[in-house]
Amino acid sequence: MTRNVARRLYDEVAAAPILSPHGHVDARVLLDDAPFPDPATLFITPDHYVTRLLHAHGVPLDELGVGVPPEDRDGRAIWRHFCRHWDAFLGTPVRFWFESELSDVFGLDEQPSEASADRIYDQLEARLAEPEFRPRALFDRFGIEVLATTDDPADDLAAHLALREDPTFHGRVVPTFRADRYMTPGTAAWAPALTALAEASGIDTGSYAGLIEALRSRRAFFRAAGGTATDTGVLTPEATPLPDTEAERIHLAALAGEVSTADASAYRANLLYRFAEMSVDDGLVMQLHAGVHRNTHRPTFDRFGPDTGHDLPAVGGYTLPLAPLLAGFGTAPGFHLVLFTVDETLFSREIAPLAGFYPSVFAGAPWWFLDSPAAITRYRAAVTDSAGFAKTSGFIDDTRAFCSIPARHDMSRRVDAAYLASLVVTHQLSEDDALGIARRLVDEQPRHVFKL
Amino acid sequence: MTRNVARRLYDEVAAAPILSPHGHVDARVLLDDAPFPDPATLFITPDHYVTRLLHAHGVPLDELGVGVPPEDRDGRAIWRHFCRHWDAFLGTPVRFWFESELSDVFGLDEQPSEASADRIYDQLEARLAEPEFRPRALFDRFGIEVLATTDDPADDLAAHLALREDPTFHGRVVPTFRADRYMTPGTAAWAPALTALAEASGIDTGSYAGLIEALRSRRAFFRAAGGTATDTGVLTPEATPLPDTEAERIHLAALAGEVSTADASAYRANLLYRFAEMSVDDGLVMQLHAGVHRNTHRPTFDRFGPDTGHDLPAVGGYTLPLAPLLAGFGTAPGFHLVLFTVDETLFSREIAPLAGFYPSVFAGAPWWFLDSPAAITRYRAAVTDSAGFAKTSGFIDDTRAFCSIPARHDMSRRVDAAYLASLVVTHQLSEDDALGIARRLVDEQPRHVFKL
Amino acid sequence: MTRNVARRLYDEVAAAPILSPHGHVDARVLLDDAPFPDPATLFITPDHYVTRLLHAHGVPLDELGVGVPPEDRDGRAIWRHFCRHWDAFLGTPVRFWFESELSDVFGLDEQPSEASADRIYDQLEARLAEPEFRPRALFDRFGIEVLATTDDPADDLAAHLALREDPTFHGRVVPTFRADRYMTPGTAAWAPALTALAEASGIDTGSYAGLIEALRSRRAFFRAAGGTATDTGVLTPEATPLPDTEAERIHLAALAGEVSTADASAYRANLLYRFAEMSVDDGLVMQLHAGVHRNTHRPTFDRFGPDTGHDLPAVGGYTLPLAPLLAGFGTAPGFHLVLFTVDETLFSREIAPLAGFYPSVFAGAPWWFLDSPAAITRYRAAVTDSAGFAKTSGFIDDTRAFCSIPARHDMSRRVDAAYLASLVVTHQLSEDDALGIARRLVDEQPRHVFKL
Repeated sequence: MTRNVARRLYDEVAAAPILSPHGHVDARVLLDDAPFPDPATLFITPDHYVTRLLHAHGVPLDELGVGVPPEDRDGRAIWRHFCRHWDAFLGTPVRFWFESELSDVFGLDEQPSEASADRIYDQLEARLAEPEFRPRALFDRFGIEVLATTDDPADDLAAHLALREDPTFHGRVVPTFRADRYMTPGTAAWAPALTALAEASGIDTGSYAGLIEALRSRRAFFRAAGGTATDTGVLTPEATPLPDTEAERIHLAALAGEVSTADASAYRANLLYRFAEMSVDDGLVMQLHAGVHRNTHRPTFDRFGPDTGHDLPAVGGYTLPLAPLLAGFGTAPGFHLVLFTVDETLFSREIAPLAGFYPSVFAGAPWWFLDSPAAITRYRAAVTDSAGFAKTSGFIDDTRAFCSIPARHDMSRRVDAAYLASLVVTHQLSEDDALGIARRLVDEQPRHVFKL
Repeated sequence: MTRNVARRLYDEVAAAPILSPHGHVDARVLLDDAPFPDPATLFITPDHYVTRLLHAHGVPLDELGVGVPPEDRDGRAIWRHFCRHWDAFLGTPVRFWFESELSDVFGLDEQPSEASADRIYDQLEARLAEPEFRPRALFDRFGIEVLATTDDPADDLAAHLALREDPTFHGRVVPTFRADRYMTPGTAAWAPALTALAEASGIDTGSYAGLIEALRSRRAFFRAAGGTATDTGVLTPEATPLPDTEAERIHLAALAGEVSTADASAYRANLLYRFAEMSVDDGLVMQLHAGVHRNTHRPTFDRFGPDTGHDLPAVGGYTLPLAPLLAGFGTAPGFHLVLFTVDETLFSREIAPLAGFYPSVFAGAPWWFLDSPAAITRYRAAVTDSAGFAKTSGFIDDTRAFCSIPARHDMSRRVDAAYLASLVVTHQLSEDDALGIARRLVDEQPRHVFKL
Repeated sequence: MTRNVARRLYDEVAAAPILSPHGHVDARVLLDDAPFPDPATLFITPDHYVTRLLHAHGVPLDELGVGVPPEDRDGRAIWRHFCRHWDAFLGTPVRFWFESELSDVFGLDEQPSEASADRIYDQLEARLAEPEFRPRALFDRFGIEVLATTDDPADDLAAHLALREDPTFHGRVVPTFRADRYMTPGTAAWAPALTALAEASGIDTGSYAGLIEALRSRRAFFRAAGGTATDTGVLTPEATPLPDTEAERIHLAALAGEVSTADASAYRANLLYRFAEMSVDDGLVMQLHAGVHRNTHRPTFDRFGPDTGHDLPAVGGYTLPLAPLLAGFGTAPGFHLVLFTVDETLFSREIAPLAGFYPSVFAGAPWWFLDSPAAITRYRAAVTDSAGFAKTSGFIDDTRAFCSIPARHDMSRRVDAAYLASLVVTHQLSEDDALGIARRLVDEQPRHVFKL
């Protein structure tokens, strides 16, 4: 009975357009519309969801093409590694996404295995050469209405601007302003980032005042290019204002190469507070992805760089560190703050209670390690009591794997339908109300939360 | 099949009398037995479960009557806000309680909406004027056998005493001793609280020894008035004894306006320990509601006061901070300590293991943000393994919304029936044993735990 | 439908041999093959799962035989306590194990109660006198293929060696190297432990270098006696190397009775790191059971000693404290590190993400307070997304209750079958794949992880 209700709810939204308000696809892929490269480069090498589990089963990252120049990679050998370890993915969302991609996008129904590896590879390679498997054709076939990318403030957004002016492309690809690298005074990357931002904005970033002005200027540029949101990734979301003079002092000290850890933290916490202040002023939605230890395995980082599978969830917390920000802007009209976590204890203890009081706060969908049927169900069960459905963000796919976008949204729709059905059959919701919520979650909700 | 078993279990307890061992209804409501005021004042304005989610959807608290003198409130306008935002409550327990109240208590089956708002308001207003909707009539109709209130030690319990002597009232309304405000030396509220307590007890509270004597005296008074339990709300439940001389020193320093944060904490931790000591002596059950950051949004607190929706769950912990108290009294005969949490990670990690060893400790029912079908189910699944059913507290409604009491207990009975049924169909429990447990949870268990 | 699939999956593995890679049975029980003593001594007194919940219901530990010399115990009186409080165990895994033992092992189907206590006791006593209820007969009947014990490095493993040479015994009983007591410089137990180790190894442990050499020597001895693994229990799993000179300094200071708390911690963290280093060298699997506060109720510890029910779960954490160890050995070929926790928030936040990247790391099965159907299901739901099935440890029974071994493994097989079935009916897994995983979890997986 639950299954029948779930099926009816899912059918209502299965074909709805995809709104993807947070992800990591490169806009240039759609601008260029070149054929995708070989299957390994499309599906394996750049996807740390896939490479990390293969690595966990003993396949060295370089044998998966990570850190290897494209011209030196052996796509077929990489593909064979993946197929040989297919068992490692059973029960994981990667298996679901992957089978969906093979079947729904490429029409291939054979299960990966050592025996089938070459056959599937050949078929995929052939498909990828066909015009209907180019990025724009897939964009249309996937029914993507909005696709948000993630971009540095110094980015010229050339691809976004060109796409907007391209009369042959009808999709909406919007940039997202992510200023993380300006928050790290005292690291080697900080001063070069300031320089790049100064060049992009034409504003001297040698002072804190200049940095703030440059960031505001670039936010306006992003808005003009269609952007509706910002994103920030931090380990801990302290957001406490500093007097300008104090921020200026730390800025100058950091440029001089002399900044204490405490000052660097205070500087970062001040910037996070200022980002909220800017959002109140310019209306850009503020997303927060907090609580990830980045690059925890030093030997892997040294050899292969970031995003290679050893970013790990931290113990999270929003209520206390965000208190100053929420005291300042929590009830500011039009301010939208979307909170994401990879520590699921926060769902019922912090995020839902915050979203259930502050007009500005929305409970971000499960992210990264938690974007699976089981974890999404736990999220709904933990968040709905205190925050209902109308204070949740709607699904985000957060992916750089373009072909997995429909599978990811489809999974979310199925899981939400099943969750809603469980409420219907236990008389916690009428089926009519559930239908309304199912539609809302894929349409009105993300449009409202992300101001699309 | 599960549903059929659950139905049989629920039928067994659906009509059982309500034992409400912890809540916030005012005893005077039952003493006066005056008609309830308008629907907004009954259902919306004083219920922070309702106002917080409306606030989260952008309705200012004053438009809901919060902080507005009753004579200046527009009940109908408040009611319209609520009905217009009915969607915000879908999937939440508020929606369940509310529909139950409308339907089961008032016989109204129309769903709230902008269109139905005035119609429902009119019907409710008419009902509230009828004699069978006065507090005492509802008390009888609800089948309430015991109703515990929450009271300050300085309270004269006049309403409780009058109800006990009123030959026309047959219910049992018992006070609960809650001495939180005496635990905060260094705050502005502390010295006036001491004064009030001195007046009520006739004992000088200018010394720590006097405070202890006055508290013991008032506990005796509460017991004489029918009280069986105390309650204490703290952020962290440190409970460590101080030598009397040290407690005395801090007491006098605080009265002189000179108390350090560390001393204030030590003083509070000592009092919590002494509360347990007093319970061992006088038999009053000790309830602990720990782990809530109170009044986190300063602007709202300054304008609207406490209990306005921005109390937020903290990271909890009982095992370490309670260790001295449990070393002292954990195995004391007759001592009952009921532990509540809003951090549900404590259920399996701390509360169930403690209740599964200490004769004194009982696992308190899910509270506040966790009093929903999903969270109650998680509580049972997390606690039963280590503590079984017989070391859990039985349901508490914790409400100031008098008309929601039967709906809240009914929800608990349904959820426990469903949980027990899931154990029956997976052969973890016989149906006979499940029936016995279902009955026990609504009767013997709360009677035993709260000494009713 | 789910039930039918679960039944087919369970049937596939119900009769598979038992691999028990972690537990606390005494090898001498199998060497001697003497009849088990009376039912109370077999089932109640030594099992802190049972005694703790009886204690929580007010039965003093000494009335359960704890801390009482065997000759002074009244087995029948102990047994009556247990039967009278049978209700306390309803819904707990103890009830399931116990009923399974009574029914499947001893053929008794009467439910314990005050009325049935003596009857069951008499029947059990009669059974225990029969030859087919001796340890070796049960070992065969239970289908145990491998049974790992837990042993001190100074142990001479005489029982293990004798069993290996006994032509009449065909089972495999292997020791596990557990060196906890060498990690606690500054405690009274430490110096005597060093002395015992020196005697066992013939190596002077008066220096840190000597301790390391002695431990390596005993590990080789354990391996020669069939051991494949080590185990370590710590409160927090810090694992940070010290320079040898620094470790030597602390070792000598501790022997002189002058070691600071900080130095003792650093020493322990260094040893944990060195244990990993040794495992990389000699191939012994490294198990970590972290996060338990031991002996929290001082009065009970003083009177009854350790393992008497008041060990309590701590807030856990692996990602940060293990970082140095994982930087050093996380990708070392052949290194196996199995992480166990009693803080279930770690499953999705730490253990699964670690097991999903590091080739060496495996997600240990739920342990102690979490070895119940509900908690095992939560473990699977939390771990599978990030780590799949092939990076989990397979079930461990962790028991000193020999007769409960088959019931515990049977419960695990049923729960895994039900979990897999839930994936099958929601199309997250084919039934064929589920069958393969079910088989793998009871066979290939523990063989691989524990190198059996």
